[in-house]
Amino acid sequence: MEAITIKDIAKALNLSTSTVSRALRNSYEINPETKKLVMEYAERMNYRPNPIALSLKDSKSKSIGVIIPEIANHFFSQLINGIESIAYNLGYHVVIFQSHDSYEREVANTNYLVSRKVDGLLVSLASLTTDLFHFQDLMERGLPIVFLDRVPKEIETHKVVADNFAGAYEATKHLIQSGRKRIAHLTSPIYLSNTTERLAGYKQALEDHQLPFDESYVKYCHYGGKIVSENEAAIQEMLSLPEPPDAIFTASDKLTTGCMAVLQQKKIRIPDEIAIVGFTNIGVADLLNPPLTAVVQPAMDMGQQAVELLIRLIEHPQKNAEFEIRSLKTSLIIRQSSGHS
Amino acid sequence: MEAITIKDIAKALNLSTSTVSRALRNSYEINPETKKLVMEYAERMNYRPNPIALSLKDSKSKSIGVIIPEIANHFFSQLINGIESIAYNLGYHVVIFQSHDSYEREVANTNYLVSRKVDGLLVSLASLTTDLFHFQDLMERGLPIVFLDRVPKEIETHKVVADNFAGAYEATKHLIQSGRKRIAHLTSPIYLSNTTERLAGYKQALEDHQLPFDESYVKYCHYGGKIVSENEAAIQEMLSLPEPPDAIFTASDKLTTGCMAVLQQKKIRIPDEIAIVGFTNIGVADLLNPPLTAVVQPAMDMGQQAVELLIRLIEHPQKNAEFEIRSLKTSLIIRQSSGHS
Repeated sequence: MEAITIKDIAKALNLSTSTVSRALRNSYEINPETKKLVMEYAERMNYRPNPIALSLKDSKSKSIGVIIPEIANHFFSQLINGIESIAYNLGYHVVIFQSHDSYEREVANTNYLVSRKVDGLLVSLASLTTDLFHFQDLMERGLPIVFLDRVPKEIETHKVVADNFAGAYEATKHLIQSGRKRIAHLTSPIYLSNTTERLAGYKQALEDHQLPFDESYVKYCHYGGKIVSENEAAIQEMLSLPEPPDAIFTASDKLTTGCMAVLQQKKIRIPDEIAIVGFTNIGVADLLNPPLTAVVQPAMDMGQQAVELLIRLIEHPQKNAEFEIRSLKTSLIIRQSSGHS
Repeated sequence: MEAITIKDIAKALNLSTSTVSRALRNSYEINPETKKLVMEYAERMNYRPNPIALSLKDSKSKSIGVIIPEIANHFFSQLINGIESIAYNLGYHVVIFQSHDSYEREVANTNYLVSRKVDGLLVSLASLTTDLFHFQDLMERGLPIVFLDRVPKEIETHKVVADNFAGAYEATKHLIQSGRKRIAHLTSPIYLSNTTERLAGYKQALEDHQLPFDESYVKYCHYGGKIVSENEAAIQEMLSLPEPPDAIFTASDKLTTGCMAVLQQKKIRIPDEIAIVGFTNIGVADLLNPPLTAVVQPAMDMGQQAVELLIRLIEHPQKNAEFEIRSLKTSLIIRQSSGHS
């Protein structure tokens, strides 16, 4: 593949080279349509700025640290691909770390990244993180951080999330309209932002359709379903209720596939006995037995917007900046797992 | 969670603190059973050495760079979890990069990691990498590199791979013994080590069972199935053959699910019309329709062994070292997708 240059892009799009150059650096002087045009063309043609040349020009390391709970998860891997697609075109390296949902590892990752002089951080919080000092301290010392997906209320900065409330509301409403009466919710630890938002959407949908909310139908998995026995225990508790659920709304990748595996093992038919809707970006939803109804997050777009906001903070540091909280729409994709009862 | 110390571990296991300390540093002076005992206990108790203290003691950065083609792949994410499980206990940070199967990105990642002073690299080659100078140059300058999964013939260092030949042989033999006569092979670019090894295993199994090898039954996907149209075209070519296949042996995660999706779309029944065996570590093989017969690689173990070999090179640099090529056994897990015809 031949390397293409800013000149080539300018010629192909009939723009000046300085416009292309500024568009690729995501400059405010260029309008969004032109930037989009240039970036998409650059991405398609595999345009690559020379990161080494770039970092010699200024004292920045031209790198961004990403700390996420785990990479073995379709949502997070799509998020990272979104981050990389923009970062790479703007000449930034993306360094990926897993916290494994551990507070200690999140702190260790953060310290390491800072000691290696990254220019900014993108973070989705570990489920076991409740103390935020390691981030607050860095922000006070001037390091830009943007949170995404699992975001802290207490820290003021840009945040990019899915509209978890609306996504959960829509999923629950869909189950109600499919004739389900006892809808359970299998979810992650309560202190994660997306857990409380999804729970609120689920509750509101029940209320709006005159179904009672019953706390015993909600099960929190401390490890977010990553431990098989945890899924098994939660579902066993649900099935042992005087009136077991006729539907389960599951809040993540691992909780969804874990739940399906337990039901399959117990020979409980989906959707005849229990319907399932998962809040998941799993790639093989169509190939599952039965095909899975899913609330899908715009993970790629979330990653792209978050890294754009971060690079803006890195390149145009401002005191008293107005911070944005962007909430992106999810999509409900209906398949057989939530079929009519 | 309270932090536990080397003293606590020593007390619990009735060992001296110096034994525990050396076991955790993977020292040769400690026998393997003791090391295993100590490391497992440390992992279980979430023991965490202080990486900052450690890196002050010597001039090492106590970090390892990992460059893999993509993280949205069960095999690679398990591999990384294996790497991290050992590295973390030995006080090393793990920095993850994706090459997206691009040679240019692999080179850029490598340069970046070196400029950030990692102590060593673990690499699984990008499918489009044919020039190895960026690695050879670094090794000559003294940077330890261990390759895993997709390894270069031309470079002498430690390598950890799955026994691709035997895995492919076993998969093909299983299809033959299930009564299949026209077994196709859907695979990645030919210049990857694991492509040629799997192809050789497939060929040998055909030959040993008196089935002819026919090149038109083998389709190479340049992007390893990451582009949907590529899967579709390859499978369409197979189906258009005068005698279409009655089984397909697929060589990776994405090729397997891509192939299943195309067959489902075309309403071709698996396994009645076409049986499938996939060389894949996909986590939901049991939940697919039909459940998928798979050749599973010991990805976690591969990651652990590779990082142990790398840390040994980092901590005990030797001239004229004997390099190992470790080939780990795969397992064939039989489910319905390869059922009798």
